[in-house]
Amino acid sequence: MKELKVELGERSYPIYVGDGLLNDIATTLAKHKIGTKSPLLLVSDTNIAKLYLEQVKSLLEAGGYRVATAVVAAGEKSKSLAVMEDIITVALEAGLDRNSAVIALGGGVVGDLAGFVAASYMRGVRFVQIPTTILAHDSSVGGKVAVNHKLAKNVIGAFHQPEFVLYDIATLKSLPEREVRAGLSELVKEGFILDRGFVEYCDANAERLLALDSEALEHALYIGCGVKAKVVSEDEKEGGLRAILNLGHTIGHALEAVAGYGELLHGEAIAIGMVGAARLSEKLGNPGSIAVETERILRKFGLPVRIPAHMDTDAIMSAMMHDKKFLEGTMVFIIPTEIGKVEINKTVSIESVREVVERLKRED
Amino acid sequence: MKELKVELGERSYPIYVGDGLLNDIATTLAKHKIGTKSPLLLVSDTNIAKLYLEQVKSLLEAGGYRVATAVVAAGEKSKSLAVMEDIITVALEAGLDRNSAVIALGGGVVGDLAGFVAASYMRGVRFVQIPTTILAHDSSVGGKVAVNHKLAKNVIGAFHQPEFVLYDIATLKSLPEREVRAGLSELVKEGFILDRGFVEYCDANAERLLALDSEALEHALYIGCGVKAKVVSEDEKEGGLRAILNLGHTIGHALEAVAGYGELLHGEAIAIGMVGAARLSEKLGNPGSIAVETERILRKFGLPVRIPAHMDTDAIMSAMMHDKKFLEGTMVFIIPTEIGKVEINKTVSIESVREVVERLKRED
Ligand SMILES: NC(=O)c1ccc[n+]([C@@H]2O[C@H](COP(=O)([O-])OP(=O)(O)OC[C@H]3O[C@@H](n4cnc5c(N)ncnc54)[C@H](O)[C@@H]3O)[C@@H](O)[C@H]2O)c1
Ligand SMILES: NC(=O)c1ccc[n+]([C@@H]2O[C@H](COP(=O)([O-])OP(=O)(O)OC[C@H]3O[C@@H](n4cnc5c(N)ncnc54)[C@H](O)[C@@H]3O)[C@@H](O)[C@H]2O)c1
Ligand SMILES: [Zn+2]
Ligand SMILES: [Zn+2]
Repeated sequence: MKELKVELGERSYPIYVGDGLLNDIATTLAKHKIGTKSPLLLVSDTNIAKLYLEQVKSLLEAGGYRVATAVVAAGEKSKSLAVMEDIITVALEAGLDRNSAVIALGGGVVGDLAGFVAASYMRGVRFVQIPTTILAHDSSVGGKVAVNHKLAKNVIGAFHQPEFVLYDIATLKSLPEREVRAGLSELVKEGFILDRGFVEYCDANAERLLALDSEALEHALYIGCGVKAKVVSEDEKEGGLRAILNLGHTIGHALEAVAGYGELLHGEAIAIGMVGAARLSEKLGNPGSIAVETERILRKFGLPVRIPAHMDTDAIMSAMMHDKKFLEGTMVFIIPTEIGKVEINKTVSIESVREVVERLKRED
Repeated sequence: MKELKVELGERSYPIYVGDGLLNDIATTLAKHKIGTKSPLLLVSDTNIAKLYLEQVKSLLEAGGYRVATAVVAAGEKSKSLAVMEDIITVALEAGLDRNSAVIALGGGVVGDLAGFVAASYMRGVRFVQIPTTILAHDSSVGGKVAVNHKLAKNVIGAFHQPEFVLYDIATLKSLPEREVRAGLSELVKEGFILDRGFVEYCDANAERLLALDSEALEHALYIGCGVKAKVVSEDEKEGGLRAILNLGHTIGHALEAVAGYGELLHGEAIAIGMVGAARLSEKLGNPGSIAVETERILRKFGLPVRIPAHMDTDAIMSAMMHDKKFLEGTMVFIIPTEIGKVEINKTVSIESVREVVERLKRED
C-alpha cells in the first residue's frame, strides 16, 4: 500500500493506493473520525453497484455504520441537477445530518456528482472518494466537484475536498478495455504536464498498464495522483497553476460537448485535445517533435488522436467559447513546451485553433 | 448613509444602508473592483423587476457594464434547482465568465437563489446583494445561500459571501404591508437574541417602523444588520454561535413546510416559532414573562403568534425531524433566557416540543 498527501493546510488529506484496500473501508472511516451515529450515503452507478455495492455496504455495516445507497444510471448524463435532486431525496429520507458523510464509489461521474451533493447538502457535509476507474485518479483528487448543464460541462459545482481517497486497484480489473485506455490517457497527461520521467515509464510500460498489471498500475497511479496532488496543493482554487492540469481539455471538452455526451469518452477527447495543444505549440514556435511524440505515445495506448470528420468545426469552436477557460475574450491554452513541461499561454488566436481543429479532422 | 462591516478576514465586506443608494450602484461596483469587461448577471423576481429592474439595468449600463437579466417568478417556489438551472442557461448564453458577478436584486428568495447560482457557477463567481425587503437584512448578510428541496427548505446550498450589501431603503416603500410586518418579525428577532435595547426601540417605535419612516428604518436595519454581522463574524460556518440566529426557526421552518410554501410568510412562521421557543424556555424553568413579553411585542407588529388550528401536529413534528437542527437524535433549540439573550439548548425533549405545538394550536 502506498500513501501520499494532498497538502492543503487544515483541509489536507491522504490518498491511499493499493490492492485490496476496500476491505479496510470501515476502519479507515473510523480513523478519519467519521462516526457511526449518523447515517452514511453511498453513491454509485448501475455498473459499479452490480459489482461492488453490496460488498462495500456489508463491510460498512459490519463496522457499525448505517448506510443509505443511491445508485444512478451509469454515464455522463447522470451528472445533472435533476439526478442530484434525486440523491438528496435519498439523503433526506435516510435522515442524513451534518455529521454524515457521502461516499462516492465509482468513476469520475459518481465522484463529481456525489461530491457536489456532499458540497451542497446542508451547505456541506464530509466526503470520501473511492475511485474505481483509472481516470478517477484525476477526478478524485483536488476537490473539484460538479454537474453538467446542457450547454456546458462541469459548469455547476464547487470546491469540496474529500476526507481521504481510497484507491483499491483490485476494483480496476473489471473495467471495460475502452475505459482502461481512456483512463490511461489522463494518467499519461500527468506526465506530459510535469514529469518527463513518468512519460518515459508509461511509454516503456504501456503493455503492462493496458493489461492492468498490479505493480505497474499501483506505481503509475501513485505517481499520477502525486502530480495531481502537488499541483492542487499549490493552487487549490485554480487561481493559476492548477490550470495546467487542463492540458488537452479546452479542445477536449468542446469535442465532448459537440459529440453528444457518450460518443467520445473523456479520456479519448482529451487525447485528441493533447495532440491539438501540441500542434498549437508548434504554431507558437516550439519544436514539431512534441506533437509527433505526443501522438506516438497516445497511439500506443490505442487512443484516438484525430477529430471525427463528421464533427462541425463551427460547433466545436462555439463550444469552446462557452468553456470556462475562455476568459474575457482571450483564449487561454495549456501548451506543451517540451515533453513533461507546459505553459499557460494567453496569446493563442482563435484562428490558429480553428486551423488546428480543421487539420485534425482532415488527416488520417 | 450608514456603513458597517462583516469581519471575516479576507472575505470581509461592507454593508451600506441608506436612502437612495441604488443611484450609486455602478460606482460602488467599480469601487469593489468589479470591472466592465465581463458581463454581469442581474437576478430579480417578477414583482421587483416591474418596479426596479429597468432602473438598475440602466444605471449599470450607464456605468459601462453589460448586463444580462434573469427574472424568476416571485415566491419561495423559485428557490429550486430547476429555476437555478434556468438562470444558469441565461448566464451561459450571456457569456458570463469567472470574472463576472451575479447581482441579487430582491428579497431573501432572490438573494438565496442568486447566491447559490453565484456560489456554483463555474464553481464560484462574485456576488452582490441588493436586498429589497426588510427580511432580507437577515438573508443578505452572512453568506448562507440555498435552494429548497421538496422535502426540506434550504437544504441544498453553500456558504458564499457577497462582495458588498447595498441596502437602499427607498426600495422598501413599495413592499406590501404583510411583507413589512413579516420582515420586522425577523428584525425584532435580532434584538431578542442579542440586544435588549433594540427590542425596546422596536417596542417604542413599532408604529414608525410599520409606516416605513425612513429614519427609524435606517436605524433599525443598521442595528439589525449589525447583530447579524457580529454573529456571522464570530462563526462564519455555523459551527456554534451562529445557530442563535435561528431563534424561532426550528418550529418556524416546520410550519412553513407543513403549511405548503406560501400560506405563512417566513417572518410570520418564525414569529410563531419565537413564541414557541419562549414557551419551551418556560418549561425549562425560565420566567414565563419572556413568552408573555415576546408575544406582546410581536402582536404589536400585527404578527401571528398561534399555529393555525388546521395544521397536523404529526406533520409539524416530522418536518422538524428533517430539519438541519435535528442533530444525531438530539433536538437542538435556541431558547430565550431573558429578553435580549438566548442559549443553545440540547436538552429539549421531543415531547415538550409536541406539547408546545399542541397548545399553540388550541389557544386563541
Ligand atoms: N473533478 C475533476 O477534477 C475531474 C477530473 C477529470 C475528469 N472528471 C470527470 O470524470 C468523468 C469521467 O470519469 P470516468 O472516466 O471515471 O467515467 P465514469 O465514472 O462514467 O466511468 C466510466 C464507465 O466505467 C464504469 N465503471 C466504473 N468503474 C468500474 C469498474 N471498476 N468496473 C467496471 N466498470 C466500471 C462506469 O459505470 C462507466 O460506465 C467526467 O464526468 C469528467 O468530467 C472530473
Ligand atoms: N440566507 C439566509 O441567511 C436567510 C435568512 C433568512 C431568510 N432567508 C430566506 O429568505 C426568504 C424570504 O425572504 P423575503 O421575505 O425577502 O421573501 P421574498 O424574497 O419572497 O420577498 C417577499 C415578497 O415581496 C416582493 N418584494 C420584494 N421586494 C419588494 C419591494 N421592494 N417592493 C415590492 N415587493 C417586493 C417579492 O416579490 C415577494 O413577493 C426565504 O426563502 C428564506 O429561506 C434566508
Ligand atoms: Zn480530465
Ligand atoms: Zn429567518
